[in-house]
Amino acid sequence: MAVRVDFNLSLDGFATTTDQTPEQPMGADWMRLVGAYIATRTMRERVFKDTSGEGTTGVDDRYARAYFDNIGAEIMGAGMFGLHSFPDDPNWKGWWGDEPPFRVPVFVLTHRKRPSIEMAGGTTFHFLDATPAEALRQAVAVAGGKDVRVGGGASTVRDFLKAGLVDRLHVAIVPILLGRGIRLWDDLRGFELGYTAESETAESGTIHLTFRR
Amino acid sequence: MAVRVDFNLSLDGFATTTDQTPEQPMGADWMRLVGAYIATRTMRERVFKDTSGEGTTGVDDRYARAYFDNIGAEIMGAGMFGLHSFPDDPNWKGWWGDEPPFRVPVFVLTHRKRPSIEMAGGTTFHFLDATPAEALRQAVAVAGGKDVRVGGGASTVRDFLKAGLVDRLHVAIVPILLGRGIRLWDDLRGFELGYTAESETAESGTIHLTFRR
Repeated sequence: MAVRVDFNLSLDGFATTTDQTPEQPMGADWMRLVGAYIATRTMRERVFKDTSGEGTTGVDDRYARAYFDNIGAEIMGAGMFGLHSFPDDPNWKGWWGDEPPFRVPVFVLTHRKRPSIEMAGGTTFHFLDATPAEALRQAVAVAGGKDVRVGGGASTVRDFLKAGLVDRLHVAIVPILLGRGIRLWDDLRGFELGYTAESETAESGTIHLTFRR
Repeated sequence: MAVRVDFNLSLDGFATTTDQTPEQPMGADWMRLVGAYIATRTMRERVFKDTSGEGTTGVDDRYARAYFDNIGAEIMGAGMFGLHSFPDDPNWKGWWGDEPPFRVPVFVLTHRKRPSIEMAGGTTFHFLDATPAEALRQAVAVAGGKDVRVGGGASTVRDFLKAGLVDRLHVAIVPILLGRGIRLWDDLRGFELGYTAESETAESGTIHLTFRR
C-alpha cells in the first residue's frame, strides 16, 4: 500500500487556475495544463470513453496507464469535486460525469455533511470532514490493500505533502508559465529530503518527475 | 548574436536565496542549487582553476561547456557582483576572485556610478545605470558579434525576460524545494509563447530545460 499523488503542474508551479466558471470548471488554462495527458490513448479511453484506439502511446501514455494502476481509493478536495461552484445544490454529483473515471471509493473533504453518492462504474463519493491523516485512515480501510491516491486540488495535495503522508509524488510539469493560480510547492521547504527523485521527458515536452521514499 | 540566460533553479522556482552573509555570499542553500553544476569538469577548470581533469563529464558538463561558449559580453545585477553586501567599499571588486571566470566585458547594473575595474584574465567590470534595453545595447556593442549573457540574479534576469530581450533561456532545475528566496518566474505569464521548449535530464537528476526563439 502506498499513498500516491499524480499531478499536472505548470513550470511556475501552478496546478489549478483561478478562472473557473460553470462553463470551464477548471479554468481556461486547464486544457493547456492537461492537454498532452488527455491526448493519451489511456486517458481518452478511461476518461472520455473513446474506444477508437486513437491517442498517443509514448511516455505520457505510460504515466497515464500507471495513473490508474493499483488504486483502491481516492481522496480529493471539495473544489476538485465541484462543491465550491455548486455549494447549495444537494443533487450536484460533481464534474466527473455519470460514470466517473475513478471506479473506487472517493472521499471528498468538505466541512458540510452530505449523503454518499453511488455512481455507475464502481465510483462512490463519500463526504468527510476530517484531517488528512483521518481521511487517509478511512481510505486505506476500504482500499483492499491497494494504493490510495490523493487526487487534488493543489491545496489538498499540499496538505498531505506537508503532513508527510505521501509515499510517491509524480508531477507532470508542462513547460508553460501561467503566472496565476494556486501554487503546489508553497511552504514545502525540504520536502525532497527522504525521497529519491527521478525524471524523464515525454515526446510532448512534458517533464515527468517522481519522488519516491 | 543571441541574448542568453543560463540559470540554476530549485523545483519551486527559487534562483537565489535569502540567507546571504559575507561568509556565504550566495546563501547556505546555494551549494545545493549549483552542486551538480560546479562538480562538472568544465566548471572546476574554469571557475575553480582545478586542472586535475577531475569532475563529471556527462550531460551537466555538456551544458557547462555551452555556458562559456561564444559569449562576448555579460550583464549582471548589482547583487550578483556583490554591491548589495559591500555598497560603501570603493575597493570592492566583486565575489568573483582576482581572475573572474567571465573573461569578457561585464556590465553591472547599479544606480551608483563607479569607475570600471580591469581584472586579470580578460574580465573588465563596467558599472551602468541603465534600462535592460540600454544595457543590452552597450553589451552588444563590445561583444564582437558573439552572444551576450544575462548572468543574474533572478530579478535582473526576470527584467530582461519581461522586456522580451532574451533569445535563449536555459534553466537547470534541481529537484529540491527551497521554500524561500527570489522567484524567477513571477509575472511571466505566457512567456513560452514564441519559444520552443526542449528538456533533458542529467545523471545528477538536474532537469535542463531550454527555451529558444
